[in-house]
Amino acid sequence: MGKVKAQKAGLGETSGELGERRIIEVLRKRFDVMPDLPVLFGDDVSAVSVGDGRVAVLKADMLVDKTDVPRGMSLWQAARKAVVMNVSDFAAKGVEPKAALVSLGLPRNLLRKDVEEIARGLNTGARQYGAYIVGGDTGEASDLVIAVSLFGTAEKKALMLRSGAKVGDIVAVTGFFGKSAAGLRLLLDGFAVSKELREVLVSAVFMPQARLKEGLALSGSRAVTASIDSSDGLAWSLHEIGRMSGVGFLVSSVPVAHEVKCFAEFNGLDALELALYGGEEYELVVTVKPKLWVDAETAVEAVGGRLLPIGKVTRGKQVILEVDGKKCPIEARGWEHFKSKI
Amino acid sequence: MGKVKAQKAGLGETSGELGERRIIEVLRKRFDVMPDLPVLFGDDVSAVSVGDGRVAVLKADMLVDKTDVPRGMSLWQAARKAVVMNVSDFAAKGVEPKAALVSLGLPRNLLRKDVEEIARGLNTGARQYGAYIVGGDTGEASDLVIAVSLFGTAEKKALMLRSGAKVGDIVAVTGFFGKSAAGLRLLLDGFAVSKELREVLVSAVFMPQARLKEGLALSGSRAVTASIDSSDGLAWSLHEIGRMSGVGFLVSSVPVAHEVKCFAEFNGLDALELALYGGEEYELVVTVKPKLWVDAETAVEAVGGRLLPIGKVTRGKQVILEVDGKKCPIEARGWEHFKSKI
Repeated sequence: MGKVKAQKAGLGETSGELGERRIIEVLRKRFDVMPDLPVLFGDDVSAVSVGDGRVAVLKADMLVDKTDVPRGMSLWQAARKAVVMNVSDFAAKGVEPKAALVSLGLPRNLLRKDVEEIARGLNTGARQYGAYIVGGDTGEASDLVIAVSLFGTAEKKALMLRSGAKVGDIVAVTGFFGKSAAGLRLLLDGFAVSKELREVLVSAVFMPQARLKEGLALSGSRAVTASIDSSDGLAWSLHEIGRMSGVGFLVSSVPVAHEVKCFAEFNGLDALELALYGGEEYELVVTVKPKLWVDAETAVEAVGGRLLPIGKVTRGKQVILEVDGKKCPIEARGWEHFKSKI
Repeated sequence: MGKVKAQKAGLGETSGELGERRIIEVLRKRFDVMPDLPVLFGDDVSAVSVGDGRVAVLKADMLVDKTDVPRGMSLWQAARKAVVMNVSDFAAKGVEPKAALVSLGLPRNLLRKDVEEIARGLNTGARQYGAYIVGGDTGEASDLVIAVSLFGTAEKKALMLRSGAKVGDIVAVTGFFGKSAAGLRLLLDGFAVSKELREVLVSAVFMPQARLKEGLALSGSRAVTASIDSSDGLAWSLHEIGRMSGVGFLVSSVPVAHEVKCFAEFNGLDALELALYGGEEYELVVTVKPKLWVDAETAVEAVGGRLLPIGKVTRGKQVILEVDGKKCPIEARGWEHFKSKI
């Protein structure tokens, strides 16, 4: 079928036009669904029952240099990040990553030292979170492609899914937002900032940290009803929990990083916009049973983290920001890489 | 470090010059090794202990259209093959695949119908062998990249590794060789053949079948001491078992497919060469305890397959072919895709 004919049949959109989320919908519709799947399609990870109430937890996420690696990021950092972004999804579910496999697509002109740098980055990303790389494969490709898949096991009932938020729960996050978004704006659009500020913001992009300790502590507290990481931005994460739990949110404060406020003020940007609609950030966004709030907070603090309440779960399906008595909707806008900006 | 400086430091080879196998060596050296790893690096699959003598079995293998998909192969076939080549590795270890994750790198101009075709191919490849696709991700890439990772569980002691062959064991295969190699020569170099022959040979390339039933039956028979699939060619598979088991082989017959003999004769090619040094073939190559030969053969025949003895495991480290009393070495040549031929 030629392109014209395909377009007439309504099949003519290109994958570039469809975008990542609609492509995933197209794919899912064609996949038979495993019976008794412990985790719904569309959550941060996949899982398979292995008996005795336990599940194997699996996650695959691919990094492509052309669209996912901003200029200035080293191969070591890119490879490390390819692992860390998968670990972050495990963190959000409260699952310890055990082993990773890596499929590498390598351009022909990559040097041996580049391959070594990639290998060291992968190893660092895994070992930092207690996992090991146990296998994989390589092949030739036009882009540098780093496809990581991660494995761990968990008790099924200990998994923190996107779908359990209840009206009245407290919504909370593990840190301040906006640094990665500011860092990317800095790298891609060339804003002027002080050296110190630049270092903090760029480091958020080049050296992301997964909140694994926090996620494991939160899972252990049994106080969490829903959880997601914020790799597509805070706003998107809230809408995702809302959609999968059938609830809404009233957000009373958005924890914007101090450095982001400085960056935004200096460059005439909106700090709240950066914090809400950024992305490539790896904080956890969770809903907590109000009666167990102290348990959740204590558990996270015991591992050196913090849990910041930002609002409440509501009956309506909207995500609303209320500041000084004024309410405005937080949009379901997210982050589909930064390719459109390059 | 610039290219010249890197070359002086001995790091200047490009990945194209290094080739797939040496790249994997470079990577492995930089990875910390998980303690008590149940399966050595370099076997067909990876594994992680999950307690009670059981292991999680993992495999990742990536298909890139530019190097792995010959002209004439449909997207549906390519996607199906991306799953089947992973299933074949599970087959060689005697492990049932349960779930697959798929990371897709999609060129921007791919149409929605193409994405649907890929999805259907992936689903068919998984369902044909009882597995389900349970997750994955997509992103933009210059090539079509299909990275599949496969998961299953097994008893650790039931795994058929590459490393257990003993002197005196019978070496056997699950089918006849050379069809994929002949099919690829046909597709890439344009040899002339009859329509019927063409169909058989091209189908071997476009619609590979994993010997999963045979692998599971062989594992169940407990008669197998070592096993590998033949995706890099029969010669390479024998050398790999030899290397990892510390043995050699005396091969007394190479089962060359009838169609390959016809193809070779008609085109003045060496049928034995195609059968030994081909690749992209998914037969199993196993070593069997002589006393349990009948058990192994019966188990494979009970699932509709066949087990063809081709020789013996020997003390020497060489792989020797003996025909009509004449001995010649089978070289450790293999198959690193067909990119060099395009």
